[in-house]
Amino acid sequence: MRTSIATVSLSGSLTEKLTAASRAGFDGVEIFENDLLASPLTPEEIRARCADLGLTIDLYQPMRDIEAVPEDEFARNLRRARHKFELMRRLGTDAVLVCSTVSPLALDDDALAAAQLGRLADLAQDFGVRVAYEALAWGRHVSTYDHAWSIVEAAGHPALGTCLDSFHILSRGSDPKGIEDIPGEKIFFLQLADAPLLAMDVLQWSRHYRCFPGQGGFDIAGLLQHVVRAGYDGPLSLEVFNDVFRQAEAGTTAVDARRSLLVLQESIGLASLPGPVVPTGIAFAELVTPDAEPVAAILGALGLARTARHRSKPVDLWERGEARILVNTGPAARRDGTGLAAVGLESPDPEGAARRAEALLAPVLPRRRAPEDAPLDAVAAPDGTELFFCATDRPELPNWRADFETIEYVETAGDVAGAVDRIDHLALTQPWHHFDEAALFHRSVLGLHGQESVDVADPYGLFRSRAVTNSGGSVRIALAVGPAPTEDETRAQHIALATDDVVAAARRFRAAGGGLLPMPANYYDDLAARYEFTEGELATYRELGILYDRDAQGEFRHCYTRTVGRVFFELVQRDGGYQGYGAQNAPVRLAAQHGQRPLR
Amino acid sequence: MRTSIATVSLSGSLTEKLTAASRAGFDGVEIFENDLLASPLTPEEIRARCADLGLTIDLYQPMRDIEAVPEDEFARNLRRARHKFELMRRLGTDAVLVCSTVSPLALDDDALAAAQLGRLADLAQDFGVRVAYEALAWGRHVSTYDHAWSIVEAAGHPALGTCLDSFHILSRGSDPKGIEDIPGEKIFFLQLADAPLLAMDVLQWSRHYRCFPGQGGFDIAGLLQHVVRAGYDGPLSLEVFNDVFRQAEAGTTAVDARRSLLVLQESIGLASLPGPVVPTGIAFAELVTPDAEPVAAILGALGLARTARHRSKPVDLWERGEARILVNTGPAARRDGTGLAAVGLESPDPEGAARRAEALLAPVLPRRRAPEDAPLDAVAAPDGTELFFCATDRPELPNWRADFETIEYVETAGDVAGAVDRIDHLALTQPWHHFDEAALFHRSVLGLHGQESVDVADPYGLFRSRAVTNSGGSVRIALAVGPAPTEDETRAQHIALATDDVVAAARRFRAAGGGLLPMPANYYDDLAARYEFTEGELATYRELGILYDRDAQGEFRHCYTRTVGRVFFELVQRDGGYQGYGAQNAPVRLAAQHGQRPLR
Repeated sequence: MRTSIATVSLSGSLTEKLTAASRAGFDGVEIFENDLLASPLTPEEIRARCADLGLTIDLYQPMRDIEAVPEDEFARNLRRARHKFELMRRLGTDAVLVCSTVSPLALDDDALAAAQLGRLADLAQDFGVRVAYEALAWGRHVSTYDHAWSIVEAAGHPALGTCLDSFHILSRGSDPKGIEDIPGEKIFFLQLADAPLLAMDVLQWSRHYRCFPGQGGFDIAGLLQHVVRAGYDGPLSLEVFNDVFRQAEAGTTAVDARRSLLVLQESIGLASLPGPVVPTGIAFAELVTPDAEPVAAILGALGLARTARHRSKPVDLWERGEARILVNTGPAARRDGTGLAAVGLESPDPEGAARRAEALLAPVLPRRRAPEDAPLDAVAAPDGTELFFCATDRPELPNWRADFETIEYVETAGDVAGAVDRIDHLALTQPWHHFDEAALFHRSVLGLHGQESVDVADPYGLFRSRAVTNSGGSVRIALAVGPAPTEDETRAQHIALATDDVVAAARRFRAAGGGLLPMPANYYDDLAARYEFTEGELATYRELGILYDRDAQGEFRHCYTRTVGRVFFELVQRDGGYQGYGAQNAPVRLAAQHGQRPLR
Repeated sequence: MRTSIATVSLSGSLTEKLTAASRAGFDGVEIFENDLLASPLTPEEIRARCADLGLTIDLYQPMRDIEAVPEDEFARNLRRARHKFELMRRLGTDAVLVCSTVSPLALDDDALAAAQLGRLADLAQDFGVRVAYEALAWGRHVSTYDHAWSIVEAAGHPALGTCLDSFHILSRGSDPKGIEDIPGEKIFFLQLADAPLLAMDVLQWSRHYRCFPGQGGFDIAGLLQHVVRAGYDGPLSLEVFNDVFRQAEAGTTAVDARRSLLVLQESIGLASLPGPVVPTGIAFAELVTPDAEPVAAILGALGLARTARHRSKPVDLWERGEARILVNTGPAARRDGTGLAAVGLESPDPEGAARRAEALLAPVLPRRRAPEDAPLDAVAAPDGTELFFCATDRPELPNWRADFETIEYVETAGDVAGAVDRIDHLALTQPWHHFDEAALFHRSVLGLHGQESVDVADPYGLFRSRAVTNSGGSVRIALAVGPAPTEDETRAQHIALATDDVVAAARRFRAAGGGLLPMPANYYDDLAARYEFTEGELATYRELGILYDRDAQGEFRHCYTRTVGRVFFELVQRDGGYQGYGAQNAPVRLAAQHGQRPLR
């Protein structure tokens, strides 16, 4: 189906909005009246700009407080409408949205509403305009879609139909099944918006918290199925009022928006995309750093060994078991200081994974960085992290390790208690505006599931964290975002390494000269109050700075290294099916990090 | 009464919070458990720190999910409580908050709750601790204050009393009058928080949106009167969970907090402060600028004349009628580029106004800047703007104009159509975190009333605006704040000058070489749709960039100059008692400003 977006969903001037919608691949736009009023472009110029950008103008919106009023008031409303229909002729659009009235002058009189909407449609017809009447969830007398439809039906005018808006329908808890009783050709327009499930005043909820389908809690796919069954064949149009999107860069928002519509259409069989290829593990994490020394010291103390070096680039491979970390000291160190730049995802079908990512509008990165490199499929995540879809030592597929030459190194003695054996999870701090976008990206592009979103109290502000994971838990990525833009170093990214004995791992790390983040004594006094531990257990945790959590499934023990640049490491031990990340302990860890300067 | 604040209400480390509370003049604190857990200080060190800072520890909080559970669970809870009572002994505090349980294990059994709370109180008594039981608004079985009190009463234990929290009581719509039926000595603690009136989930409302008394919509004063009548004589303590305060600088928040308690106490006769001295007009606005030329060009074109120069400083006085603007090119130009640095408020009693401001914790500025200057009472507003309480040409009071020497200038011909005659309003953009603080400051310190708060859609983000005014409307200050920190130049401050003929004023301004901000043609097409104008009227507005608004009382016409640095000017014509500021037009004006580079 054709896709469209209301200009109010994007930030910036009208020109910026139109450009962003076009670049993201939308077919059309709804022109929001205030965007037009504030634009220096004439309606004819807007029309031409849209044509140049390959955009149709699918709707002009909104017209408010038209119907069910005393005759003198209605005469004024018709006068106003005539001006707008003339404007629409200049714009070259033939559909206008009329919202159910909120005027205190309006009468609770459906027959009057139908008669006046019919007269409005008469006038509209003279201008070649079709009127789409929509129930606002907070409309004065008409607030449900079936009520709006009954008025449209009663008017029985060819230029009058209804507009359905998923927010107005689902926020009221209306059953969308009744949509199928509306003749498809009388559904003149469909506006889609999701929203988080908040118990709050519906008008405030609508004006500030709408989001793109799949980013909230509504069953938009279910509603869309009913609309399709009714026979609607107009555009799928996003109308999202969101305080954050109002501030975010329009181009990014538009891509996020269209991705949401692609996934929505796929979910009900309206679009066919390359299927998701769920990663089966983390092949590697890649750090960039201007100075390998501090990172190397920590990795060595963590028990990883430098086993290989890239053939043509200053990139070292550090590994232990399936935990592999690349340390890149090349000019690719684009970020300030030391940071996490890329993630290798072990993929059963790297090419297929990249095809899906591309279909879902992820920027595709060059397959070969140098002529001699093995081909490697990669895309950029919304936060700029490079995601490589790759295979480790699987004969049927290009092997990313083939680009690395083995270094002679002293093998450490076989099995060691507490040895790190894989990456448990990666924690990626997202740019302020892009939390929902990142979650949708990781779910739709990578086929990961979202876990519960949690608030974490940092001493200097709340932030929000949400993990995405595959079903086996072998890929876990924790996405976090602060409450506002910040330069705060402690909102760094981190790599958590799994061990089956965190106490032994921590001791060995310390013995090898590694610096563990010390935790406050009061924390351990509180653990003693909350849980009973075996003799000496708590003293050990206290000594090593190990944090403890427990859920219905199992236990979690974890500790942290000092921060290097914008990165730190965590050692984690999961027992008995614990699924979380120790969010309970995060405020204590964050406070401890605020008390320390990062190493450089 | 003694004042106290919960550490959770302030941002930062525990040490930073305690320091801020002490500096703002609080007598005590509630220690929030998570702040203690995350602190590297031992309980003994925290106790000593508080003593050094002159703070008592009035409460340790919270203890959760204690009561009405099966015996084996309760035994674990008592064990946990014993640990906390030991901790409290080390801290040197004797009161603990117990919140009504939210545990799914809890039984709906008041007798069991009373019996177990009694046993908890037995244990507490051994440690010299008093238990204050509070109903959470979302408690599982106990969610109202009278229910919590009935359980405390049934337990009949000397070490068990109740804690009242204004948020939990008022958010549920409970009638606070019943508080008077509780014996004062059984009200062990009182926590105060206000909140905006939002229809939303009460837990989310409580956790994110609480604010200080007078900043929300609750009748905190009414509740406090009931508590005082009940005989409560403990501290007034603020417990505020607020996403913004979590990020704001603790020292500023603590001052804002204590100011709110002072005003609250004054409002019900518990504190005696110097009375408010409401300003009767705006004596002057003072601009600082590194280069007087662009400002002078605009002021001259606006019809103001440079009439006087400060005796000892590079400050010029520009005036016309009662519109007076100082242009300061001295080193006092602290801000980057051109900005509004000070406001002179015409005061019937400048010294009294300053005494009140000082009592309400406003930083008092030196009365004489130089030995020869006339004494001038001044304080700093929260945004750093200097507020001078002054008198213009009133013989009984020091005259600020006495410091200025008249310049020879050519008098313009007497009455001129559209001449500017006074400052209609000043618009001051507030730092991001300080909107509620600024509104409370202007209301309490200056005795101005708050007008309605409105959302304004800037093309690049929503912002919020709220005006404060005196009853005659001769002082109007519009406070605005953006949705997030921004460097955006168009969120500048501005000075609106009143005229009784904005068309004539705009024409003269333009004829004198002034640059008016052009407005888009589409805006005028929309005006034509909405209103009927006299012949030629709209064409004039369109030509000059005059915006139009209308409310139930009257009409408003206004236009804007180009921006210089961070300041621009507005010409406004109010007719028939219009009370607003043209907020309806602000998105169009903001978009027009985004399209222009400010002059420097």
